Amino acid sequence: MLESRERASLDTEQVTALAELTERVRELNEAVVHTEVGLDEVAAVRDEVAALTARLAAARRDHPPLVGVGADGTVRHLAGPVGGVLNPIAPPVEIAVLPDGTARAEFTLNVLYEGPPGFVHGGISAMILDQLLGVAATANGTPGMTATLDMRYRRPTPHGVPLVAEGRATRTEGRKTFADARIIGPDGRTTVEATAMFVMPQDR
Amino acid sequence: MLESRERASLDTEQVTALAELTERVRELNEAVVHTEVGLDEVAAVRDEVAALTARLAAARRDHPPLVGVGADGTVRHLAGPVGGVLNPIAPPVEIAVLPDGTARAEFTLNVLYEGPPGFVHGGISAMILDQLLGVAATANGTPGMTATLDMRYRRPTPHGVPLVAEGRATRTEGRKTFADARIIGPDGRTTVEATAMFVMPQDR
Repeated sequence: MLESRERASLDTEQVTALAELTERVRELNEAVVHTEVGLDEVAAVRDEVAALTARLAAARRDHPPLVGVGADGTVRHLAGPVGGVLNPIAPPVEIAVLPDGTARAEFTLNVLYEGPPGFVHGGISAMILDQLLGVAATANGTPGMTATLDMRYRRPTPHGVPLVAEGRATRTEGRKTFADARIIGPDGRTTVEATAMFVMPQDR
Repeated sequence: MLESRERASLDTEQVTALAELTERVRELNEAVVHTEVGLDEVAAVRDEVAALTARLAAARRDHPPLVGVGADGTVRHLAGPVGGVLNPIAPPVEIAVLPDGTARAEFTLNVLYEGPPGFVHGGISAMILDQLLGVAATANGTPGMTATLDMRYRRPTPHGVPLVAEGRATRTEGRKTFADARIIGPDGRTTVEATAMFVMPQDR
């Protein structure tokens, strides 16, 4: 495993500039699935995208950047695929930890995350809850690797409308931590529930 | 739920052109997380990305396109978030169905899908296996909505190396179909296992 000390750390100005670029690229991703411009224009844009990629690749770091947060040496994966502000494919899920230890996020998913027409892909719900459950375990003071993740799909989760996800650690047993989470639709009904078990590495 | 007949259907030429654009945008997504060009250049590229988005948005369909496949009216979600050739955020996971009904994919994930440094995000593994299990259930002649998905993480899944995912339906009970799947690392060892239960809609 790569150690975080091998990763670049960015200052606030760098994070802000790259996050703005990331946001524009997210909009481009969405425009691709909606576009119906002519094929000549599609080809022209394609070539210009390739030129921009080459410009960004003119100076390239091997690994995506992390930033240190907190005096305990905790790192935040800025380019993670769930909510990473520097990852253009990440759904915009910013997870906060409430005083009672609940991990919570409010977000709206666009059509890039669609499974059945009109609804969120079940795997996207799993990905978001996996991340949220990990944050809840960490907030509990018992971070660990995900050992199991059990999803229960109660009803379809709509996209294009505000959703809430929340979760928290429920109990620990030795090195194991259990946590529950769910996604709640705009009508207040739970659409998906998840339970995860995390195992703390033995060298901690 | 939106019916597939409300979605645009594309011809082969259109799919090819949009898939090429999508592939270039995927490369741009990856370049964003690796770039260390100066902040002036980041800002310049950002503005050019926005201009390209506006060009694609000059003609816009409300919903992403589907294509019909097969005489049975089956549709393929070309812009789905797992393997969708027209979705720039989709990991490049092309799922084939073998003669014995096994759904199988060979793929390599890049750093956009990273969780712990050097390894695939557990939620990405869940997303890929959710999709693969659905294909296996459909190949079994018993498609349905995912009711449960149970993930078991055996060891970390590396990114940047070839992976195999495979799964198949194991049994049916009335309207329920059960399927198992796993991801296998380059050393031949299983990294993640999953079991899903699908429920066929009552109106089928």
